[in-house]
Amino acid sequence: MAQEIERKFLVTDVAWRQYAKGTLYRQGYVPTQNGTTVRARVVGDRGYLTIKGPTNGVSRQEFEYHIPLADAETMLADLCQPPLIEKWRYRINVGSHLWEIDEFLGDNAGLVMAEVELESETEIFDLPPWAGAEVSHDARYYNSNLAKTPYRSWPKEISATDVSCPE
Amino acid sequence: MAQEIERKFLVTDVAWRQYAKGTLYRQGYVPTQNGTTVRARVVGDRGYLTIKGPTNGVSRQEFEYHIPLADAETMLADLCQPPLIEKWRYRINVGSHLWEIDEFLGDNAGLVMAEVELESETEIFDLPPWAGAEVSHDARYYNSNLAKTPYRSWPKEISATDVSCPE
Repeated sequence: MAQEIERKFLVTDVAWRQYAKGTLYRQGYVPTQNGTTVRARVVGDRGYLTIKGPTNGVSRQEFEYHIPLADAETMLADLCQPPLIEKWRYRINVGSHLWEIDEFLGDNAGLVMAEVELESETEIFDLPPWAGAEVSHDARYYNSNLAKTPYRSWPKEISATDVSCPE
Repeated sequence: MAQEIERKFLVTDVAWRQYAKGTLYRQGYVPTQNGTTVRARVVGDRGYLTIKGPTNGVSRQEFEYHIPLADAETMLADLCQPPLIEKWRYRINVGSHLWEIDEFLGDNAGLVMAEVELESETEIFDLPPWAGAEVSHDARYYNSNLAKTPYRSWPKEISATDVSCPE
């Protein structure tokens, strides 16, 4: 079991695209009731099952297991609530921290979010120029909630600024 | 992923006690919403995480993974809805089938249930003399429901016959 401590930011420009190649992620959630999330994920030819406890500030308990790809695919198809989350993930080092930028597809297209994993809730880190408003505490941006209420269904006035992508 | 096909019976006498030693099981469930169950289990010094799909007749999809004991213990303590299920499990071969008898403890004390796993829903099997009424289709007897509405809380008139245990 790991303690996951992370902070999340909307991404406001596209300069980060020059720093990393994307990896396609597909994931879904078994509907749960107590703030625990049960996630099946496929990354390339690898399957994962992840259980996360309720969020406490910017921390939560996380249990992640590598599982057979076929199991993860069956869970996504049969046990997870549609729509699935599909996104390109980009990993970029900024100072001494690894940032992950998620560029969402499908029902969440238009949303780009960056997160940095920390050792403690009070850890100092460099904020890259492409990181915009912090949304760590906004539950709408949890991936598990984006699977229930996708970004494209949000009322226009509360949507984050779309990132337009140059050709 | 396996397909779990099993039939369950109440146990009406104690003759089975002479055939097997018990193993203590502790398990709990992450509260879910769509008939999927997410179970953490500790058997001796081994931890397991099991995801089961919704029941279809007497069949359901089952995904079981061995996980670190400490992970399973933390899930039981922090993520599973109390009360936990605690039971002694006894394994007994009857004809060509393995039966598992569960003698429940704690809030489910008094309930003894036997189940046999089958290859197909129509498979023939020997019914041992200590197997009573079939409860395969009675959702009250699902372990996940016994964690929510334990046997001891059932109205007396719908309780199964208690098995009295000789000294």
